[in-house]
Amino acid sequence: MSNETYHLINKVRDTKPLIHHITNYVTVNDCANITLAIGASPVMADSSDEVEDIVGISSALLLNMGTLHFRTIYSMKKAGKKANSVGTPIVLDPVGVGASRLRNDTALQLVDELNIDVLRGNISEIKYFAHLHSGTKGVDAAEANTNNLDDAIAIAKKVALKLKCVVAITGAIDIVSDGEQVVGIKNGHPMLSNLTGTGCMCSSLIASFCGANPKQPFDATVAALLTMGIAGEIAHEAAGHIGNGSFHMALHDAVSKMDAQALEQKARFL
Amino acid sequence: MSNETYHLINKVRDTKPLIHHITNYVTVNDCANITLAIGASPVMADSSDEVEDIVGISSALLLNMGTLHFRTIYSMKKAGKKANSVGTPIVLDPVGVGASRLRNDTALQLVDELNIDVLRGNISEIKYFAHLHSGTKGVDAAEANTNNLDDAIAIAKKVALKLKCVVAITGAIDIVSDGEQVVGIKNGHPMLSNLTGTGCMCSSLIASFCGANPKQPFDATVAALLTMGIAGEIAHEAAGHIGNGSFHMALHDAVSKMDAQALEQKARFL
Amino acid sequence: MSNETYHLINKVRDTKPLIHHITNYVTVNDCANITLAIGASPVMADSSDEVEDIVGISSALLLNMGTLHFRTIYSMKKAGKKANSVGTPIVLDPVGVGASRLRNDTALQLVDELNIDVLRGNISEIKYFAHLHSGTKGVDAAEANTNNLDDAIAIAKKVALKLKCVVAITGAIDIVSDGEQVVGIKNGHPMLSNLTGTGCMCSSLIASFCGANPKQPFDATVAALLTMGIAGEIAHEAAGHIGNGSFHMALHDAVSKMDAQALEQKARFL
Repeated sequence: MSNETYHLINKVRDTKPLIHHITNYVTVNDCANITLAIGASPVMADSSDEVEDIVGISSALLLNMGTLHFRTIYSMKKAGKKANSVGTPIVLDPVGVGASRLRNDTALQLVDELNIDVLRGNISEIKYFAHLHSGTKGVDAAEANTNNLDDAIAIAKKVALKLKCVVAITGAIDIVSDGEQVVGIKNGHPMLSNLTGTGCMCSSLIASFCGANPKQPFDATVAALLTMGIAGEIAHEAAGHIGNGSFHMALHDAVSKMDAQALEQKARFL
Repeated sequence: MSNETYHLINKVRDTKPLIHHITNYVTVNDCANITLAIGASPVMADSSDEVEDIVGISSALLLNMGTLHFRTIYSMKKAGKKANSVGTPIVLDPVGVGASRLRNDTALQLVDELNIDVLRGNISEIKYFAHLHSGTKGVDAAEANTNNLDDAIAIAKKVALKLKCVVAITGAIDIVSDGEQVVGIKNGHPMLSNLTGTGCMCSSLIASFCGANPKQPFDATVAALLTMGIAGEIAHEAAGHIGNGSFHMALHDAVSKMDAQALEQKARFL
Repeated sequence: MSNETYHLINKVRDTKPLIHHITNYVTVNDCANITLAIGASPVMADSSDEVEDIVGISSALLLNMGTLHFRTIYSMKKAGKKANSVGTPIVLDPVGVGASRLRNDTALQLVDELNIDVLRGNISEIKYFAHLHSGTKGVDAAEANTNNLDDAIAIAKKVALKLKCVVAITGAIDIVSDGEQVVGIKNGHPMLSNLTGTGCMCSSLIASFCGANPKQPFDATVAALLTMGIAGEIAHEAAGHIGNGSFHMALHDAVSKMDAQALEQKARFL
């Protein structure tokens, strides 16, 4: 990894980009606080009457499908079109796609109607996009054993090419691809999956890094995932033995203290 | 209490049941995290366009009336009917019933239209259900001094028989009844009432235990209330003297570390 | 500051006023918990079908514009009219006014249609109200350098006179004015701006103090801001070096432990 990737965090802290979230009400507080912890500034606004105004003053737009409903879906599309028209990067977190037809349809509409810059999800969420328009069901690479790293890489590349965006599959090993480059990140800790919203927070970090570094979505995504993975390791070391509550707090502590040096020293790639 | 009750927690941790919450936006993050801390998996979804799909993949449905509005009331009914039709247990938390006509009407409709498996509330909330259809006002047992344990037990039994469900009245002493059996739990700490959402979290734990042990709603409810009460004691011991924030974190710590042995050793019954 | 101001906190803890919040879904949990930490009791209800009932049992109404949409705007107006009609104090937190036309229009409507008792915001939010009905743009005192304390005081006074309410401008130095009296509070810590919702929590504290001391909105506001500022200092001392998560928890700890003596000993005025 080039030195420059680690230093993208400085750009976040120096420029304090405003990150417009249209997101769920479950993890929204953690998303706002993690955005502040990395040095960016969150604004949550989901009324269709104001999303265009808010996109207009923001450096990145995050669309998180956690608690979808008709009102916010409409706002997501309206905000996304505005973001595309002014060149503001869009990060899409398709929470729970595959779990309901509403989520499937919405995810499809969002990637059809908008140009997404970064798509982040777990393997089962990203697999959904590998099937889109593929005309096949059940015979896709996506159907293969997803514990298999090679398959995850293949899915990331395929979806990145299909949607012309950066794809991040987060899990025990995080995979980032833009269709050509692929990076695998080994940082992180299983305890992250014991808290709600660590995936959502990852997406907020990606949006923060993209907002500060809009020309480098791939490197920004890698730096954001390194930040979360390394913070998870530090939080586990500090408080994992005490329990979930202390780990939660320590995770916010670790992100707020993160810097380029820690990223460089602790990064572990595939 | 039979040994088996304490071991219901193992079934939660082993089977990781998916718990569908239609809940309020105030305490939802704590509810999601406590569900994870006990070993279950939360999904929050309130759009009427998807609640049937989500019920279809869930092991229990929790309806929490904390921040009611017309959209979510409709979703609660739709989700509840689906849950009843497929035999998925429903836990109802009638937050604030008695405080507004909207809450009163909604609570009435929910127990009329749905078969509820477990109803949990504080004494004033549960009293509301004792009056329903009773044709009397003010001359009911529910009107009696509710500091009186005998009255609370009578109300729990009456409501359980009326609604054909398990009723849990939480407070200084928790009462659980299915209309015949009654258990009183002395665990807990007054500091729990200094945090928002400890009642809601109780309901999430009940839903988690019921999702993993759907044939034993009474024992599952007892085990869930023991978990919360004992966790409150452990959290108070660890951090109560520091203040509400530390106690809050320690409560999540304690639930995440809870096991059958701790439940058995620390349980205190009436 | 008179001794009596510091002792307003005792009235909050002794009377446990119910504080009706119509607020955003980002910081709502912190608002509920800080309300409990100061000794009041929160109720969050935003359905137009019940807000009048809830106002009817509450001691203060807090309108927070954080995540506005048409449904809650209507509820704010309905609740506010009821509060005015029964003499319940209203605190308005115009979050993000200036950032979108929706927020500007809503803020204007709220101050036009309702009698607000306390308005709290940062300098850029309060400046918006200095312009209202002024017929001028860009030549107002509000346009002056807002790092300038004299300008902030002038804006606070002007808006207080215009809206006939207490105005609190929070920032490095908090300014409170009712149009005649002005108090400047130097307590606080820059780290408060690293957490989401510290402004919202301030407003919840103001509403709690006003609910318990409805005849003294000016002193209640001063006492609430002292509480938050001093709690920020204590939290920073206890946990600021660890990071944002620990600071967040310590802030709740400090508010829950606050008393009149600490307020008196640590208050620092301009």
